[in-house]
Amino acid sequence: MKSTREYLWFNTDSRVELINITEDVRKILTDSGIKEGLCLVNAMHITASVFINDAESGLHEDFKEWLEELAPHEPTDQYRHNRGVENNADAHLKRQIMGRDVTVAITDGELDFGPWEQIFYGEFDGKRDKRVMVKIIGE
Amino acid sequence: MKSTREYLWFNTDSRVELINITEDVRKILTDSGIKEGLCLVNAMHITASVFINDAESGLHEDFKEWLEELAPHEPTDQYRHNRGVENNADAHLKRQIMGRDVTVAITDGELDFGPWEQIFYGEFDGKRDKRVMVKIIGE
Amino acid sequence: MKSTREYLWFNTDSRVELINITEDVRKILTDSGIKEGLCLVNAMHITASVFINDAESGLHEDFKEWLEELAPHEPTDQYRHNRGVENNADAHLKRQIMGRDVTVAITDGELDFGPWEQIFYGEFDGKRDKRVMVKIIGE
Repeated sequence: MKSTREYLWFNTDSRVELINITEDVRKILTDSGIKEGLCLVNAMHITASVFINDAESGLHEDFKEWLEELAPHEPTDQYRHNRGVENNADAHLKRQIMGRDVTVAITDGELDFGPWEQIFYGEFDGKRDKRVMVKIIGE
Repeated sequence: MKSTREYLWFNTDSRVELINITEDVRKILTDSGIKEGLCLVNAMHITASVFINDAESGLHEDFKEWLEELAPHEPTDQYRHNRGVENNADAHLKRQIMGRDVTVAITDGELDFGPWEQIFYGEFDGKRDKRVMVKIIGE
Repeated sequence: MKSTREYLWFNTDSRVELINITEDVRKILTDSGIKEGLCLVNAMHITASVFINDAESGLHEDFKEWLEELAPHEPTDQYRHNRGVENNADAHLKRQIMGRDVTVAITDGELDFGPWEQIFYGEFDGKRDKRVMVKIIGE
């Protein structure tokens, strides 16, 4: 069995951002030389997500608006989590809707994807250093 | 390490449908001869889900109604994604609630399931050819 | 390839409870001797979740309140699933928001986690025996 583990680093300009990381994951896979297996991609911080959906900017604005309706940032004191030094309870909730991790099949050395699948990092409490893990096992 | 990769194809009569695929996945596992490992089952389209829940028709109606409340299809122009040729933004959102993929443990050549676990394909923008991937690695 | 499969058992005092299981999973990993691979942790019941988020009691109360808004338990007869002997439709829905499973990378014999990642069992219809599966494959 072969395995590889790499990090992707982010420090976003905005509090909420959705970033396409498909090519970064593909490069890690190619460098690993793994031809058959599974690739786990997960946020390493609990106010961020990794998810697979469409690379369409209108939809990304829809996602942000929808998540803000389901788990509003303000008023921040509506959440118990925010009654100390924190103000990011909404980001912990948004992360549950969008998910922590995706697992991608590796076949013939490629991300085994449907026609529109793209991997995104979902940042919900940004402007600081955060990481995504890419772990691939196989042979 | 052994691995297998198979597709399940769907073309639903309705826009939204929930379909039990447990036996299809089980057959792929049996044919693979893999006894210990992990089985990834994921929608290959970004307006569909794969999830594990109850095979109970009343609950499935509840799911459809609940998803329609959380991410309504109409009016379609409430979503930026739909201001071109698309009208399926709600399906992209519903897919995030229900999830893209499940990973199932394989033990002694069986899907290692609790008493009620069943795997479903969740179609949210149907009436066209779409695929689910089944990827199993192990030995 | 090495693999291990263990269960964690729960019988909660309350209908809804969030329980930190990180140390239980870590012990199973250590006992397995697996150094590189993937660890799948999943609820084996369809009215419960396994998720990764923050070990902060205020946030856990926020989660419970938020889930109750998104999928209220009462009135129970608002759900078709509950029109027979069941009254737990809301738990099936809450489980979709919080997720069935997480996959954790194993590197150098450790759960390869960010600084705040902790694994939780989310019970949404408790007061009875239920299980979580831990399956690790690797070498």
